[in-house]
Amino acid sequence: MLKKAGVAILGLGVVGGGTYEILTKNKEYFKKTQGVDITVQAVLEKNKERALSLGIEESKIASSIEEVCSNPEVDIVVEVIGGTGVAKTFVKTALMSGKTVVTSNKELFAKHWPELEAEAKKMNAGLFFEASCVGGVPIIRTLIDGMQANKILSIKGIINGTTNYILTKMAYEGWSYEEALKEAQRLGYAEFDPTADVEGFDATYKLSILSSLAFNKKICIENVYREGITAITKEDIAQGKEMGYTLKLLGIGKDTEKGVEVRVHPTFIKNDNPLASVNDSFNAVHLVGDAVGEIMLYGRGAGALPTGSAIVSDIIFAAKHNEYFYASFKNNAQGNKETKFVKDFTSKYYIRLTVKDMAGVLAKIATTFAKNNISIAEVKQVGGSDNSAQIVVNTHVCAEGAVKKTLDKLSTLPEMIKVNSVIRIED
Amino acid sequence: MLKKAGVAILGLGVVGGGTYEILTKNKEYFKKTQGVDITVQAVLEKNKERALSLGIEESKIASSIEEVCSNPEVDIVVEVIGGTGVAKTFVKTALMSGKTVVTSNKELFAKHWPELEAEAKKMNAGLFFEASCVGGVPIIRTLIDGMQANKILSIKGIINGTTNYILTKMAYEGWSYEEALKEAQRLGYAEFDPTADVEGFDATYKLSILSSLAFNKKICIENVYREGITAITKEDIAQGKEMGYTLKLLGIGKDTEKGVEVRVHPTFIKNDNPLASVNDSFNAVHLVGDAVGEIMLYGRGAGALPTGSAIVSDIIFAAKHNEYFYASFKNNAQGNKETKFVKDFTSKYYIRLTVKDMAGVLAKIATTFAKNNISIAEVKQVGGSDNSAQIVVNTHVCAEGAVKKTLDKLSTLPEMIKVNSVIRIED
Repeated sequence: MLKKAGVAILGLGVVGGGTYEILTKNKEYFKKTQGVDITVQAVLEKNKERALSLGIEESKIASSIEEVCSNPEVDIVVEVIGGTGVAKTFVKTALMSGKTVVTSNKELFAKHWPELEAEAKKMNAGLFFEASCVGGVPIIRTLIDGMQANKILSIKGIINGTTNYILTKMAYEGWSYEEALKEAQRLGYAEFDPTADVEGFDATYKLSILSSLAFNKKICIENVYREGITAITKEDIAQGKEMGYTLKLLGIGKDTEKGVEVRVHPTFIKNDNPLASVNDSFNAVHLVGDAVGEIMLYGRGAGALPTGSAIVSDIIFAAKHNEYFYASFKNNAQGNKETKFVKDFTSKYYIRLTVKDMAGVLAKIATTFAKNNISIAEVKQVGGSDNSAQIVVNTHVCAEGAVKKTLDKLSTLPEMIKVNSVIRIED
Repeated sequence: MLKKAGVAILGLGVVGGGTYEILTKNKEYFKKTQGVDITVQAVLEKNKERALSLGIEESKIASSIEEVCSNPEVDIVVEVIGGTGVAKTFVKTALMSGKTVVTSNKELFAKHWPELEAEAKKMNAGLFFEASCVGGVPIIRTLIDGMQANKILSIKGIINGTTNYILTKMAYEGWSYEEALKEAQRLGYAEFDPTADVEGFDATYKLSILSSLAFNKKICIENVYREGITAITKEDIAQGKEMGYTLKLLGIGKDTEKGVEVRVHPTFIKNDNPLASVNDSFNAVHLVGDAVGEIMLYGRGAGALPTGSAIVSDIIFAAKHNEYFYASFKNNAQGNKETKFVKDFTSKYYIRLTVKDMAGVLAKIATTFAKNNISIAEVKQVGGSDNSAQIVVNTHVCAEGAVKKTLDKLSTLPEMIKVNSVIRIED
């Protein structure tokens, strides 16, 4: 028996256009293989020309969210506007009208999931967000319906395509950060203002959503340690290569007896780590569960059709089923408060320093680390010029706080010129 | 509101034991995070000692499938016996009693899915089989609920851990096939009689199930071309390495305008193919969808806890939801008959020959290929001894039939000593 569903798309940008394309192109296929007949009944888009150029009839171009929500032909509202301004208002309005919402908006979801979920529950409406994290990769569905048998112990992901493209080009082409960013902008991988990507905000939103699902605990973005890639140099990437490491911007979540630890930062991983060969704009998420062991999902994290794939899969799910996913954990600020977080996390560190090339400087540095209880795995001179030397120190596992203290102390040494880089190493 | 579900486990081998362990260890966690209270109410296992050693109360050890199926406390029956003998009888009996069945039995499912599904539908019972393919990797759930937006164009997978372990050891340790098999048997990765794995039967079962789901068409095992790894030599693996190729036993499915093509055979893939770095007993499935592009899922394809993870995730899904998955395509022999299959598929080929070391032999070989319309990408001598030479011919894309004809013709040449290997190359 064919189920019918009407869809409204809010915003016809890249992802909105991709969604419309898939719904139109594969309409007959969905009838046959999914038993659902999905029709785009309305769009909300200021740029009327854009809508018409996609082949959308003028009668379907709505002029307000109220018009969309009062349309009885519309069952499912797709929000692909982005941001937390009108997008939030529109999503709330749709939910309050009892419409099911499908969104790709990670910022909205990371910041306002509790509020939106409460609204959805009240109206018994669906709230779907597969497209908010890692584009076409069904990581949300996997966490909800594929990994339930497990306590997830860790989640590690390359969850931002822009920065992964930049780091890949720096590693393989020897480009500087600035060169790689410029090319990413030219290709449309990076925005004119790249802050959200390169400073790790985008990854932070996603990690907040994914780790909440993985650990069944509310994890607000304020709890995610965040560090972007703007300070990364090709020297560090080259140095890492020599040590057998690849540099990636990772989102890392761990749930241990000590508490939850969530952080986004540039990370050295061993070359044989399955995440190390995830290149260009590809994304991947690596999970460890207490039963399943390691699993990894890999694919395109962005783009019209990959993100459209996630949205349309959510639409089809919503059209077929009457049961919706609501978080089983206390999905609000109170829930977040009840979660224990590890702030002074531990890691291995790679630290590159420029010092005056004087006798005894290495010994002084080593002593400073030792005094702060940090055990050094390796220390070596990797270059220098005139009277200065470049030193790389690799530590064993130690506490973030101890490293900060050590670096503060090092800065006061007369031999010290500069702390060039501090990069965490993850096994 | 806590939902209660009672489970019976048929067979307490490796996977049955793993399932029991997860259900027991994470019971409280499932109550909290999934809202389900799952209790093992019965087991069916000839070896009573085994059951008792797992901590199962004697009163829960059933003596017959009838006893299990007439137990009103049992909602879900887990079949982890394997094979198509009693396992089939037990599964049918359970379904006929209206019990939902969760199985890891790929052979049973590949051979009798239509019959079992018909029974399940009749009784409105669930029939879950995530654990039948690729262990803990949620590939079935992904195909059913994560990729619906897509027409899947191809599926390529390393879907047998035993053969992947053997090929990895041959590649990295330089072991012979026999040496690698022996070690796999010692570690419990390979059975005493390894036929099902090394001859590709196991992969064939899985490919039949996965490609049916991927392409929404019935694909019986009879339609899957099958070739195992027993003829693979370390010479070919080494030769592949030199050309930048890794050898894997792949399950390959393609759905094109010409029809469906499904095959299991040793395959050279480029080293930068994401499947190339899937080593040891790990599995991975690579999909291409018309919207999502490439995605890959990676993880453990076997073992007590990874396979148990898939089973328990199915159990939890069954306990939480009242809607079940039944195939949308005509899931029977008739459906298979209506599917168009490509038998004379095309591929690139690597062919290693031993010939008499005589002037003009290369020209003769090249001419034979040309006469059969096969374009050669590269031909080179790679070794030899006394009066013989080893020749490797790499072809451009050509038809399987043409290759067979060419090899038949080559065998009649007086210069020909032996066709050592014919291995397909997949881009």
